[in-house]
Formats: sequence, structure tokens, C-alpha cells
Amino acid sequence: MQKIILHEDIMAMETRFRANFINSLTGFKSLGLIGTKSAKNQTNLAIFNSLVHLGAHPPYIAFVVRPDSVERHTLANILETGFYTINHVNFGNYKQAHQTSARYPKEISEFDATGLEYEYKADFYAPFVKTSVVQLGVQFKERINIALNNTILLIGEIRLVFYPESGLSADGYIDIEKSGSLCGSGLDTYHSTNRLNRLAYAKPGSLPQTM
Amino acid sequence: MQKIILHEDIMAMETRFRANFINSLTGFKSLGLIGTKSAKNQTNLAIFNSLVHLGAHPPYIAFVVRPDSVERHTLANILETGFYTINHVNFGNYKQAHQTSARYPKEISEFDATGLEYEYKADFYAPFVKTSVVQLGVQFKERINIALNNTILLIGEIRLVFYPESGLSADGYIDIEKSGSLCGSGLDTYHSTNRLNRLAYAKPGSLPQTM
Repeated sequence: MQKIILHEDIMAMETRFRANFINSLTGFKSLGLIGTKSAKNQTNLAIFNSLVHLGAHPPYIAFVVRPDSVERHTLANILETGFYTINHVNFGNYKQAHQTSARYPKEISEFDATGLEYEYKADFYAPFVKTSVVQLGVQFKERINIALNNTILLIGEIRLVFYPESGLSADGYIDIEKSGSLCGSGLDTYHSTNRLNRLAYAKPGSLPQTM
Repeated sequence: MQKIILHEDIMAMETRFRANFINSLTGFKSLGLIGTKSAKNQTNLAIFNSLVHLGAHPPYIAFVVRPDSVERHTLANILETGFYTINHVNFGNYKQAHQTSARYPKEISEFDATGLEYEYKADFYAPFVKTSVVQLGVQFKERINIALNNTILLIGEIRLVFYPESGLSADGYIDIEKSGSLCGSGLDTYHSTNRLNRLAYAKPGSLPQTM
């Protein structure tokens, strides 16, 4: 049975109830652990569920930051140093990934606090999450302030990608399900996936074809 | 075995290969069918995989538009009329949803072309997708031009929500897996989900707790 809720009902909800409700409406979410290091070598790690593809050429990826939240350390380090990593969340690290959302003080690294191991490689400035199978090294490009609700869209350019060799298809698609990446729903729920279908490029007049 | 790809390798990829590759890197994606109607009553429907939660109070949702793609009809209608719907993609409608990405001429409605039924309700201007279990009525709030790569972030305010009564938890979370919503990967792959866990609000010092 479908029910309706109107804008005024949403505005009248209790704060936490509303956060859960509205966060369910965008559908399943991309999850990424964003790793940074301050100019003073203090590492930071935070989970984000707002990753969005912005373009392939050049390769841009964006995410939303709330400056009044635990995300502020991530933001500060990115603006200070210009580099960060985005690491997929998977079955082996999702509980620790969730724990990075706790409000640790700035002098505590979420790598240490959660037990997630970091690694440095390919001379990239920011730390990668060792247990993530897909890891991106990203360079900050632009900060867009969204005055409507004091959020920020942070845009970065992908400088390097670590990916599972066995997951790469002949046409460039990476099977992130096979490599164990998870998705999220709401603010706190984690899901694995079952591939239903890969569909060919859609053209008028033909029906969707399985690849 | 993990492999590395550098920025210059990405820039040198064949266009379609690069699109598949880079679109795999953001992780699983939110899927939404966006329904619009022009001032001349021409309906339009298009699938988007860039939905992002922007805030709960007030309830804002955003998505990315590429003005040179089939998405331009959606954009034109939203700017012209101010209203649109966002409808979850599920097992029963994902093939038709994918087919909305074909380049139909402006005078053809993707509702007609794909066989997806529309419905009007609650006096909302734009058409909903009848087979979607979660349906949002959204009012346009702001267009943010991203000069970096000529994309647009469109921000809307949620005016009304149709949701499955049986999926709503006592704390506001909607079980979109139970109601059959799907997620996407890459440009063309559809997945159902298996909930692994719902984890309690994270606090420093404690381990992640199952709710």
C-alpha cells in the first residue's frame, strides 16, 4: 500500500526521523572512503555516500560535503594539500568504514581508531585504504558552494586508478560487484549486489538487449 | 591482482572504453526515472544515475545533467515548468527505464516509446511512473553551471513523496530493498541488493553495532 507524505509533513518530522526518511529517497548510494593527509602529516579517513560521476574526459568525480560535520577534517585537508584518495567500501571493511563517521577529534586518525590499514604508493601524497580493491588517487579541481543549504560540491580529477585486473571487461567496464564493492541506503545500511543484467546501448525502435 | 592506470592512460583511451571505465569507478549508482511535462503538455522520461542527497531540512535532492545529451529535454521541461518527478527503478521496469536513454526526437514521449505507464496524482504537474514504488514530486530550486566540463547540477526541493507503507521503519528509514529498488554500475548494468547490515550511529570508542 502506497502512502503520501507532503512537504509540510516532512518539515514537521523529528530531526533524526527526517534524516533517515529523506536519505532513503535517493535510492542506493555510492560509498567511498576518502583518505587525506594534512600538511602536518596527520591522516584522516571518512566515509561518504554522495559520490557522483561528473565526466569521463577529463575524468572528474564529485561529492557533497557538510562543513559542520565530521567531514570538515576531510575538507580542510583537501583544500590544504590538493590531494585525496577515494576507496571503495567492501564486505571486509564496511563496519570499519561506518565507524569512520564517529566524531573523532582532529588529532586522532580514523585509520588508527578503526584499524583500517593505510598504504602509500605510486608516489601519491594521500593515503589509500589497503583493503579496498578499487582505489582512486584524486586531485582537487574546484569547490562549489551551494548557498541554498550551506553544503559544498567538491570536484576532483582522477590522477590514477588501482583496479582489479580480473574485473576489467574488454570494453572498459569494471565488474565492481565481482570485486566485492558495496552500496548503501539511508544513512547506515549496507548492501551487496546481484547483477541482473547488462544492457546494450539503447537505440530508438529496438528493445533493450542483454549484452 | 591489482593494476594501475594513470591519468595520461585514461586520456588516451578510446571514447566508449573510457566512458565505461570511468563510470565504473564511482561505485554503485542511484537510479531514478525523471518525469517531466512541457508547457505544451509533451511528456518526457529519462533515466539518471547521478542522484545525490543534498539535505534533509529542507529536503533537497540533486542530479547532474549533460546539456548535449538526451537529458536536454528533461532540462528544458524543468526550467520551463519548475516541476518534475523522480521515480525509483525496480525489477519490473528497469529494461524500459534503460530504453529511455535512446535518442528519441522531442515530439516522442519516452512513456509511449517504452510502454512505461504514467500517472498524475495529488494535483502534481509532472507525470509519475506508475510501476515505481517510490515516487517523488520535486520543485526546481537552483541550477548550478559547472564550467569545468559544461555540466549542470540541478537542485530540487521534495514537495511530496509516495512510499510503500510496509517499508517504513519506526525511525524513518524506508526499506528500499524490500520494495524492489535497484542500483546501477557503469553506464548500463543493473543490480538488485542483499542487505548485509544496518549499523547504529557511530561513536568514538565503541565498535560498530548492528541495529
